[in-house]
Amino acid sequence: MNGAGYTEETMTNVRAERVREVARLGTRTGRSKAGEFLAEGPQAVREAMRLHLTHLEESKAPVVGALYATEDCLDRYPEFEEMADKAPGLLTRLVSPEVLAAMADTVTPQGIVAVCPLPETSLEDLAATRPKLVAVLCRIQDPGNAGTILRAADAAGADALVLTSGSVDIYNPKAVRSTVGSIFHLPIITNADLGETLALFKSQGATILAADGYGAADLDKLQDVSAARRAGSTTAPEAGQPMLEEPTIWLFGNEGEGLDETELAGADHRVAVPLYGIAESLNVATAATVCLYASARAQRRS
Amino acid sequence: MNGAGYTEETMTNVRAERVREVARLGTRTGRSKAGEFLAEGPQAVREAMRLHLTHLEESKAPVVGALYATEDCLDRYPEFEEMADKAPGLLTRLVSPEVLAAMADTVTPQGIVAVCPLPETSLEDLAATRPKLVAVLCRIQDPGNAGTILRAADAAGADALVLTSGSVDIYNPKAVRSTVGSIFHLPIITNADLGETLALFKSQGATILAADGYGAADLDKLQDVSAARRAGSTTAPEAGQPMLEEPTIWLFGNEGEGLDETELAGADHRVAVPLYGIAESLNVATAATVCLYASARAQRRS
Repeated sequence: MNGAGYTEETMTNVRAERVREVARLGTRTGRSKAGEFLAEGPQAVREAMRLHLTHLEESKAPVVGALYATEDCLDRYPEFEEMADKAPGLLTRLVSPEVLAAMADTVTPQGIVAVCPLPETSLEDLAATRPKLVAVLCRIQDPGNAGTILRAADAAGADALVLTSGSVDIYNPKAVRSTVGSIFHLPIITNADLGETLALFKSQGATILAADGYGAADLDKLQDVSAARRAGSTTAPEAGQPMLEEPTIWLFGNEGEGLDETELAGADHRVAVPLYGIAESLNVATAATVCLYASARAQRRS
Repeated sequence: MNGAGYTEETMTNVRAERVREVARLGTRTGRSKAGEFLAEGPQAVREAMRLHLTHLEESKAPVVGALYATEDCLDRYPEFEEMADKAPGLLTRLVSPEVLAAMADTVTPQGIVAVCPLPETSLEDLAATRPKLVAVLCRIQDPGNAGTILRAADAAGADALVLTSGSVDIYNPKAVRSTVGSIFHLPIITNADLGETLALFKSQGATILAADGYGAADLDKLQDVSAARRAGSTTAPEAGQPMLEEPTIWLFGNEGEGLDETELAGADHRVAVPLYGIAESLNVATAATVCLYASARAQRRS
């Protein structure tokens, strides 16, 4: 690693102030105070560095502030040295396995972590891009669920993820891990006010759909009608039924309670993923995946 | 609780042999030796008891061997006493919270566990039901993934779950928990030989689909063609493309490696869930959900 900021000296003191600073990013307070979060492991760091280099070219805000890696890891993944060389101003340090373990939340951080400034995207910035597909997490509590939905949203080509206030912190290490790099793939709004968010998207003509097991609209029927319409069916759309091809904001609710009355009231339609077996409900991440893919299929093929 | 086998005496000795026997069901060896597994918490136990009562009525094998509950739990959920009263021969014991904690794998078992005989379903029994939708897990390692796929398979109305040898034990407590009761909803075959399994289903005319990120068939195109066909399109099906309406056996592969060459060779088609964003892959449970729902939609509406 010969990029700017690189020194040959390997950090070995697990009690060093910098090590403790990085370790504090494992807590919400620590992240909030520092304005940074931690990406752990080769896959997440690779996605962070890719976006960092793109941002450099486009003179956008840096994505990575510092890289800490063990010598073993750099031997195994030479790409990190190559990427670091292309990123002047990036602090890059060799650390001992003990230091890395002290910095990271994971038991096996696989030799590399990146300290990343918390990105700042405003609702207004997002709205200006006229998003066609957005996932809104309403008081989702489990970091694994939030991360899995972000990854599914990325796969389905969604334009953004919004988390309402009262939701889990998506920059928590467990959530970051479960996104497998997707945290660097699409804009994320945190601590959003739901009323404000929906008012803004509604003013742009987007349809607000609530994923709700008790919803009157059946997602599979909506998909069949949408597919028939795209195949050239001239049947008029059923009155009062949402069209999946339209710009769509999906609301996904809390694991235990689902969406509450206020959240449901903000939606134009309540849509149920049908249950064909004996299961009484779906995990929220599973339901969100099915909903987002239904929208992607309809929008991408219309 | 006045059902047969019930005694007033509360078990309080955490070192009692019976407590240790139940605790051993937390390990694969323990389950294998005892021929039993443990369902923990009100939701799983409720599903177990429901099936147990149905089996009693139909003179089928018992689903629950013994129930252990704290007094607090029975006060909170009177339904368990009612169900136990209807189940003569079921061993039901009050236990102290300490005994329950020593028996269970969970930190908070929520006051109730059920010891259940490992069900014995043979591949031949399953084939005799001419299943239309089966999920086959090929060397899936993570208990949470296996459990989540089982729950999604249940929701999608699949007829069975098959796990090949080398897969995680679905009766491991973490897997059982993540099924949220679905482990009692459909037949499960464990330690299956993949070649034998596929030969049997192929002889019945089922189509074998491999979920494979590099697959030549695009799941969303297959769904569109299926929807158009069901809407009365007279266009001939594309040559060499699978029809989702047909009886289908889905293969889902190992988390790190996906399906290996031998497993892929057993399939009639390799089908990819399309990725519309930047994500390079989907979590196997997410992909399985999308695939199983695609089949359910096509089969249920044809």
